[in-house]
Amino acid sequence: MNKLSFASDYQEGAHSAIIERLCETNLQKSAGYGLDENTADAREKIRAACSCPDAAVHFLVGGTQTNATVIDALLRSYQGVIAAESGHISVHEAGAIEYGGHKVLSLPHKLGKLDAAEIREYCETYWHDGNREHMVMPGMVYLSQPTEYGTLYSLAELTAIRAVCDDYHMALYVDGARLAYALACEENDVTLPDLARLCDVFYIGGTKCGALFGEAVVIPDPTLLPHFFTIVKQHGALLAKGRLLGLQFDTLFTDGLYMEIGKPALRAADTLRFAFQKAGYRLAFDSPTNQVFVVLTNDEMERLSESVEFSFWEKYDEAHTVVRLAASWATRLEDAERLAGILGEKETMNQ
Amino acid sequence: MNKLSFASDYQEGAHSAIIERLCETNLQKSAGYGLDENTADAREKIRAACSCPDAAVHFLVGGTQTNATVIDALLRSYQGVIAAESGHISVHEAGAIEYGGHKVLSLPHKLGKLDAAEIREYCETYWHDGNREHMVMPGMVYLSQPTEYGTLYSLAELTAIRAVCDDYHMALYVDGARLAYALACEENDVTLPDLARLCDVFYIGGTKCGALFGEAVVIPDPTLLPHFFTIVKQHGALLAKGRLLGLQFDTLFTDGLYMEIGKPALRAADTLRFAFQKAGYRLAFDSPTNQVFVVLTNDEMERLSESVEFSFWEKYDEAHTVVRLAASWATRLEDAERLAGILGEKETMNQ
Amino acid sequence: MNKLSFASDYQEGAHSAIIERLCETNLQKSAGYGLDENTADAREKIRAACSCPDAAVHFLVGGTQTNATVIDALLRSYQGVIAAESGHISVHEAGAIEYGGHKVLSLPHKLGKLDAAEIREYCETYWHDGNREHMVMPGMVYLSQPTEYGTLYSLAELTAIRAVCDDYHMALYVDGARLAYALACEENDVTLPDLARLCDVFYIGGTKCGALFGEAVVIPDPTLLPHFFTIVKQHGALLAKGRLLGLQFDTLFTDGLYMEIGKPALRAADTLRFAFQKAGYRLAFDSPTNQVFVVLTNDEMERLSESVEFSFWEKYDEAHTVVRLAASWATRLEDAERLAGILGEKETMNQ
Amino acid sequence: MNKLSFASDYQEGAHSAIIERLCETNLQKSAGYGLDENTADAREKIRAACSCPDAAVHFLVGGTQTNATVIDALLRSYQGVIAAESGHISVHEAGAIEYGGHKVLSLPHKLGKLDAAEIREYCETYWHDGNREHMVMPGMVYLSQPTEYGTLYSLAELTAIRAVCDDYHMALYVDGARLAYALACEENDVTLPDLARLCDVFYIGGTKCGALFGEAVVIPDPTLLPHFFTIVKQHGALLAKGRLLGLQFDTLFTDGLYMEIGKPALRAADTLRFAFQKAGYRLAFDSPTNQVFVVLTNDEMERLSESVEFSFWEKYDEAHTVVRLAASWATRLEDAERLAGILGEKETMNQ
Repeated sequence: MNKLSFASDYQEGAHSAIIERLCETNLQKSAGYGLDENTADAREKIRAACSCPDAAVHFLVGGTQTNATVIDALLRSYQGVIAAESGHISVHEAGAIEYGGHKVLSLPHKLGKLDAAEIREYCETYWHDGNREHMVMPGMVYLSQPTEYGTLYSLAELTAIRAVCDDYHMALYVDGARLAYALACEENDVTLPDLARLCDVFYIGGTKCGALFGEAVVIPDPTLLPHFFTIVKQHGALLAKGRLLGLQFDTLFTDGLYMEIGKPALRAADTLRFAFQKAGYRLAFDSPTNQVFVVLTNDEMERLSESVEFSFWEKYDEAHTVVRLAASWATRLEDAERLAGILGEKETMNQ
Repeated sequence: MNKLSFASDYQEGAHSAIIERLCETNLQKSAGYGLDENTADAREKIRAACSCPDAAVHFLVGGTQTNATVIDALLRSYQGVIAAESGHISVHEAGAIEYGGHKVLSLPHKLGKLDAAEIREYCETYWHDGNREHMVMPGMVYLSQPTEYGTLYSLAELTAIRAVCDDYHMALYVDGARLAYALACEENDVTLPDLARLCDVFYIGGTKCGALFGEAVVIPDPTLLPHFFTIVKQHGALLAKGRLLGLQFDTLFTDGLYMEIGKPALRAADTLRFAFQKAGYRLAFDSPTNQVFVVLTNDEMERLSESVEFSFWEKYDEAHTVVRLAASWATRLEDAERLAGILGEKETMNQ
Repeated sequence: MNKLSFASDYQEGAHSAIIERLCETNLQKSAGYGLDENTADAREKIRAACSCPDAAVHFLVGGTQTNATVIDALLRSYQGVIAAESGHISVHEAGAIEYGGHKVLSLPHKLGKLDAAEIREYCETYWHDGNREHMVMPGMVYLSQPTEYGTLYSLAELTAIRAVCDDYHMALYVDGARLAYALACEENDVTLPDLARLCDVFYIGGTKCGALFGEAVVIPDPTLLPHFFTIVKQHGALLAKGRLLGLQFDTLFTDGLYMEIGKPALRAADTLRFAFQKAGYRLAFDSPTNQVFVVLTNDEMERLSESVEFSFWEKYDEAHTVVRLAASWATRLEDAERLAGILGEKETMNQ
Repeated sequence: MNKLSFASDYQEGAHSAIIERLCETNLQKSAGYGLDENTADAREKIRAACSCPDAAVHFLVGGTQTNATVIDALLRSYQGVIAAESGHISVHEAGAIEYGGHKVLSLPHKLGKLDAAEIREYCETYWHDGNREHMVMPGMVYLSQPTEYGTLYSLAELTAIRAVCDDYHMALYVDGARLAYALACEENDVTLPDLARLCDVFYIGGTKCGALFGEAVVIPDPTLLPHFFTIVKQHGALLAKGRLLGLQFDTLFTDGLYMEIGKPALRAADTLRFAFQKAGYRLAFDSPTNQVFVVLTNDEMERLSESVEFSFWEKYDEAHTVVRLAASWATRLEDAERLAGILGEKETMNQ
């Protein structure tokens, strides 16, 4: 029997509705580079979902590519991007932002989140530094929603960060690689129209949220980034058969699928959290979305890894480790329950 | 009724065998970033097809991305890449090579092809120039097979260019975006093992040759580009669900499919060439693969465009234009014959 | 006895007035990075000489550095710079422009000059190309005055190019590395105020025109390039002891020295041209400024090089070579006359 | 009367011996780009001083330029440079390293210094991280000697860092912008031959150490960086009149001048330290070279600034500030004594 796997949220292919569309349209001919009708439909539906009828919407293939392209487009050569030390662009993009010539100005985080007051203080310090003309100017703020820690910015927090961006003439960009898991979460109070109102650019993640691949970049004010198509091309990020992106997002934004698609992951994650706690384990921190972070002794980790795949998050202390389990739109509740069962047996055995 | 379309060779989705595999494997879980079994299988089959058991094989999403990543990996900061003035990297990649810091050293071409003697002369001139240390050093040669003009390098020509590369310590890189159409062509005498023997790096095109997307980068000597994985990541070119690339190339290299998949396109292109000539039109030049280049009067072009989609290639003179018709693996012979019929009617009418 | 040398126009140090100022001010303390009074004075005098009281004036060290910094500041990431194939940035800057991520869009030249009509045609073609979004957008035009061939743009020619720039929303930048030799030339009708009126940015050369080093970048509309100081710093082009640049340009722009400093070079060059022609040699082309281009047989070149240093320009044919002799502000007329004498002897011997 | 100024160590011009050489050689003609005899002599003397007869020695103009050029030359595209958070490249080079495509991997510092054990731990963590292929690889270590805090690495410390570099295949690069102040310091036990033995590249500072400008890059093993000349050119860092650099370093390395030139600065700094302490002020930390860091109340700072120029270092707490006073090779002991006098009066007044 296969191991249970909660190793990541991109282990499966795509939602069945997407696969069907892919099969149906496979031999239809269409224009390349996103100039086809599927893509036009997807754009229109995303604009509607964001209550932002004028937005420019571009479809790219993956997250690092999207971040590198958008950040390079938003910044002038002498500007850098403020991000959490734990942000994807700070650590796990192999220097893609620097490859584009820009410094990541990393700030301490609280469970993956930046704090408006700390961003303000950073900017205040920069703009009052007599040597600031010898330094990298902060030109934008990068956030992820949910964060790498699975946590969420509240509408109040996001509004406060927007105010800092306004005060210091910075763009605000939100990386929504896992956005469906925020939108499906009861705790979340930030809607797509909120993002469109507060961000200069944000992206709606497909790769981790039910698509084979793809991220939808939303630019509420399309005059902000003229020639973005060419910037995408220059970054090697323009898909020839753009309709593949169009039809996936068209499907995700038909009948509100994107708003629902994260729910099974949240239910599975809740089941896991409850099971771990019931079995006497401690959650490393409170994370309301599709990722679960548990403190295990190194022995427990070893033993659990015999039947379950998960990922190392960080060392807790000499004897303990924090591990991450990720559920996705495709996670079957029965798999979460099987894991609960395994943990329950252990609990019994431990008594 | 829909227009006939010969607008490009990436208008359709993927070969049915690929779509089947995609459906079958959709909900299987697999490791990301090309660490899955499908990808391992694809690698193994490509190594076998290239008679190159040690080659490193990496799968990227698209052509511009692949060119930018490979060229940046092969060159040192002070080196440039020799390419035909008509080469894809010279004109149609929006400056992606320069974005990586490298100059494209463009040379005149003959129907899309570079000439070994001219490359040699360029290098000779460079290395004898007293100011060469103030100039960009040629560090590699970029070719496409087939070229943008649909023409082919012969084995003798490729061998001669390899010799120039050896003499001037340059890498040789072949862009095989349309490689299936070379391999399927009777006129072609350059095999995959030849490419593996003569090139430092080459790529086997998927996007235009039966896949939804994807290009397989072959590095015959894997010690040449250590850490290529990280370079791919840094360029935003690493697909999270790498298995999508793996399963497509695994399919294309099962039972020799890739060697056959170009044939329908060649047959359709031959049909078109014959029909145009029979109808009294002139081919702009001899192009043996899947693209057909015809000289039309501007009026003829206008009229034909009412029933057929094709693309503008270049102005011939005030009164004439060269247009391009592209067939693909998915082109139905009946469509080529329908176009032949349309041309035949005109021929009749013209008489 | 030493050989005569006409090898380049940067063989000597600086004008005696500069050396005096350098000695006088040597142990005065001043603020760094161009915030000192010498630099403020130089700025003011250059503004006055350009009849451009609001211009921003920045002092950099050398030409390649200045070109790379200004071009990177003027262009957006997806834009390239139009330049003559013979332009310094096209061939002799080791890829400095590409290092900054920008393509040099090189056009054919006539004796080093671009033609307004050809620039217009290039832009027209670009903006009408259906694939232009996949191509590098021309964002600016780079000219040199005098050109690398020692030729001059007339006011009419420059005005025509400005009009093309206006029509296609491009910046116009003039590299004045040898500007003093244009300003001192009778044939020239382009003044500093003309440059300030017609260019978005230009630079007044010091290194080849009487300074130890240094180039003065003039930005007539200072709002065009905010934060240019930081861009200069980022390019490693900010001199710590900026006053060295300030005092040199302050001296060059005191009592009209810069308008006069090129004259000895022009007289020497005229003497050389006259002597070569009198001795039966042919000038390669008409070049009115401080450089002289002569066609020699390979034997004559060999023989002359025994007593005179000059530089190879280009092969003329199998038997002939074009060589360049450069005079500078520091060239003594007696040296030009000595060379005339040597040529005269040969002439006599040849009779 | 002028204010006393201890604002920086680059307020004056150059040592009188340099000015004399500059005047003497001013109208001599020489080859450009460092191919002249002065430069050859300077190279030879620096090789001798470093006991490194094979070293390549290149002369650049300024520090940021030198750092950006050397770091870009040493790193492969996917590598970053480890530096102290307080390092010049981390904060005060306006993103010049990132402009070249490389991430600065900043580590905490102790008074400007990196610790071998912490570098080792960073590398150990990186090389054991399962995601390291998605991260920037540490490719080199950047140190400054003396540091920005005026502190010194001991030979033992430097040797320990070299060992870490060896273990993790990293290059070691030392920024010697103020190296003369280390070499002149009694506490220092790191010689030029030690640097040549332990570093892959280091530079000997001229700008802050008696030259008008200029930094001498020493590459002990010249095969390490082939084509460095072209890299320098590409970075806009090649001075046309290279002899200006050559004659300055030739002078600095004649009769051991460079080993002595820092001494007046150290004496002046000692005088300042003694005077501040005697007057009851506290040094912020122990700094043995030419910079003095003092804790003042904000009121004291205000008052002192009426008669003395110094620079803000950092806020100490709400009521106190750390200020920096810099002495240089040109600082007159009498100026330090005048400041001591001013402080003495205050002390008296305070009693």
